[in-house]
Amino acid sequence: MRPFECIFCKKTYPPDPFSLFCTKCKEPLLAASPETTCKIHSAREYPLEKYIDFLPINEFSPGLSLGEGSTPLLKLNRLRDEFNLPYLYAKNEMLNPTGSFKDRGTVVAVHRAVSMGIQQIGTVSTGNMAVSTGAYGARAGLKTLVLVSEDVSDEKLYSAGIHGTILFKVKGDYGTLFYKSLEIGKKKKIYFMNSVDPFRIEGYKVTAFEMFEQFKGKIPTHIFVPVSSGGHIIGLMKAFKELKQSGLTDTYPVFIGIQPEKASPIARAFLKGDLKYSRIRKAESLAQSINNPAPPGGNIVLKMIYELNGEVLYVTDDEIRTAQRLLASYEGLFCLPASATSLAGAFKLKNDKKLAPSDRIVLILTGSGIKNIKVLEPNKMKVFTTSLNKLDRTLSSAVI
Amino acid sequence: MRPFECIFCKKTYPPDPFSLFCTKCKEPLLAASPETTCKIHSAREYPLEKYIDFLPINEFSPGLSLGEGSTPLLKLNRLRDEFNLPYLYAKNEMLNPTGSFKDRGTVVAVHRAVSMGIQQIGTVSTGNMAVSTGAYGARAGLKTLVLVSEDVSDEKLYSAGIHGTILFKVKGDYGTLFYKSLEIGKKKKIYFMNSVDPFRIEGYKVTAFEMFEQFKGKIPTHIFVPVSSGGHIIGLMKAFKELKQSGLTDTYPVFIGIQPEKASPIARAFLKGDLKYSRIRKAESLAQSINNPAPPGGNIVLKMIYELNGEVLYVTDDEIRTAQRLLASYEGLFCLPASATSLAGAFKLKNDKKLAPSDRIVLILTGSGIKNIKVLEPNKMKVFTTSLNKLDRTLSSAVI
Repeated sequence: MRPFECIFCKKTYPPDPFSLFCTKCKEPLLAASPETTCKIHSAREYPLEKYIDFLPINEFSPGLSLGEGSTPLLKLNRLRDEFNLPYLYAKNEMLNPTGSFKDRGTVVAVHRAVSMGIQQIGTVSTGNMAVSTGAYGARAGLKTLVLVSEDVSDEKLYSAGIHGTILFKVKGDYGTLFYKSLEIGKKKKIYFMNSVDPFRIEGYKVTAFEMFEQFKGKIPTHIFVPVSSGGHIIGLMKAFKELKQSGLTDTYPVFIGIQPEKASPIARAFLKGDLKYSRIRKAESLAQSINNPAPPGGNIVLKMIYELNGEVLYVTDDEIRTAQRLLASYEGLFCLPASATSLAGAFKLKNDKKLAPSDRIVLILTGSGIKNIKVLEPNKMKVFTTSLNKLDRTLSSAVI
Repeated sequence: MRPFECIFCKKTYPPDPFSLFCTKCKEPLLAASPETTCKIHSAREYPLEKYIDFLPINEFSPGLSLGEGSTPLLKLNRLRDEFNLPYLYAKNEMLNPTGSFKDRGTVVAVHRAVSMGIQQIGTVSTGNMAVSTGAYGARAGLKTLVLVSEDVSDEKLYSAGIHGTILFKVKGDYGTLFYKSLEIGKKKKIYFMNSVDPFRIEGYKVTAFEMFEQFKGKIPTHIFVPVSSGGHIIGLMKAFKELKQSGLTDTYPVFIGIQPEKASPIARAFLKGDLKYSRIRKAESLAQSINNPAPPGGNIVLKMIYELNGEVLYVTDDEIRTAQRLLASYEGLFCLPASATSLAGAFKLKNDKKLAPSDRIVLILTGSGIKNIKVLEPNKMKVFTTSLNKLDRTLSSAVI
């Protein structure tokens, strides 16, 4: 098992899911990259088998999997033509088993739990991660505890609860809860696989490996990724670094992290050229699932983005709302507002003249829109009320 | 293009999406099976390319696809062990682009629409099909009209509306609306791709072809399929008949259609040995998406089920609710009550001593549970409320 390491001071640690921070830098640890040359085993069936050389698991267990990954890469020609964008693609992470990219991380962390004989797992979540951890915990037969903030919606609570997950609504600061859960977990041997858990991040790498294969080696020029805690984009960047280390590519895509304006501590630090971000007081954008005032992986994101010449931008709630509607109405892709930040970010980069017509850009669509119907605007929809008798006439007036 | 045919009187018709019923028998037409021997092209990327020999499309257009199909086949060992069931599998159709099996039919019907230069499509739906048709219509750039019953929930309305779909809430009998839509569609050249549309049914065949390949030629002994209009199970049975015609298999699985007790016109006819079903007055089970009092494909289902020695059963709302909870809490699969009828049906067959321990049985999980949170029972979930300070103590009491 590869050690954990702090990418700031380079100190290494044993790969212990109960000790996840550098004692010196206080930053989250990552799994060290493989030291030997890795191969992709394309002919294998499951993603975790194809890319196992890169991953901190010894063997893939189908019994712990819900069929995550192998998500479609779609060409979005209608949006491209309408808005004069470069070659535009979506990596549709909504088609993971619980409707978000979180599943890719959860499956790896659960493999780790089972291989260590850990019987209790947990997470701290506002929604997607609760459902994902609940589902995979059930599949593996583990006791699963999910800590949610007091104001979580019933929809999210119940779709985690149906898995037999034990749910705790916790009053108090949500940021503190993240660290508190790890502290209690260590004491009680509950593996809290939270947002920047090193094994979780290893799972996110798989999305990048899949794209690398789907583009048949001709890697995309830009990858747009919504950023909350930072775990997702860290995983994607780490994957491309490891592909390069193994001699499978000699270039990187430009990674563009996107935050909502009202929840943009990392973007603000990037725009000032800072090495560290400052926690903000409140994060209250339309993109509820990425409203993170104090992203635990924020400083790692900044370090890697500077190193790979990427950017972290922010977009407004209005831009997010428009992007969500455009993805649904031009391409049939109904994603969460958080996911739609990716398209809003692409528009921003285009307006800043930072995209060339020959570029190949990918939007990572992180989660399904069905999980938050409440943000939609019914008044912008075309709804007619009629009767069977009048149907013919109503249709005529609406259609022609 | 292969003709349509009536499987009762064998009369054939031109494959016209505006004439879908036998003028003599009044039954829905199906696409005639291929006359030549078909091959599976396993090495191709997309399902519609792999099985194109069997399908009524000349060419697959990625621009009309949202990445439907290639859904996971999962082994459910925890449920199997707990309840002493035969080898148990789930075909997870929830992982289609809009969260239900409907997408497999919609994509084929939309291919047909585009190849004919049809610019307006529509459907009549209570939910899943509205969203699917809305999404694929948007992807293809077609004007899309969806007729829903007056009492449709906002969730379902909005998740179709976000695609730019034109929505019509229609007062009056829902069964009549089905036929009325086809009548108006013919007049106005709107292709209403409703539940038993022949092209839609051709799309459902692909699920069976995928299972055939996933089982590596060793076909399952039983396939459990929730039944509403009948289109889905007709497609699956038709696929296996065509596999046999092409010499790819010499046996059939036993097909078990499941209906909710309170919406079971086909099951009731089957239990009496009738060749035709009688419409029921009301269909009001927990499994809202398969509450169909007058399934248009009901008589075709009966004819094919008798021919292939299958069964059509019904299960109670309580059995459905239990099955839904078991799938979520033992295997991490949160499906709609309609989908859970498949497991309830398997329990029923087991109790009737009609399953052997060596059988290989598949549950078709048709749609994602997130689409109907309201049916869940929060009082059966484990929810604790606490504060940051008391978290440690609350966790201890709950866990140990």
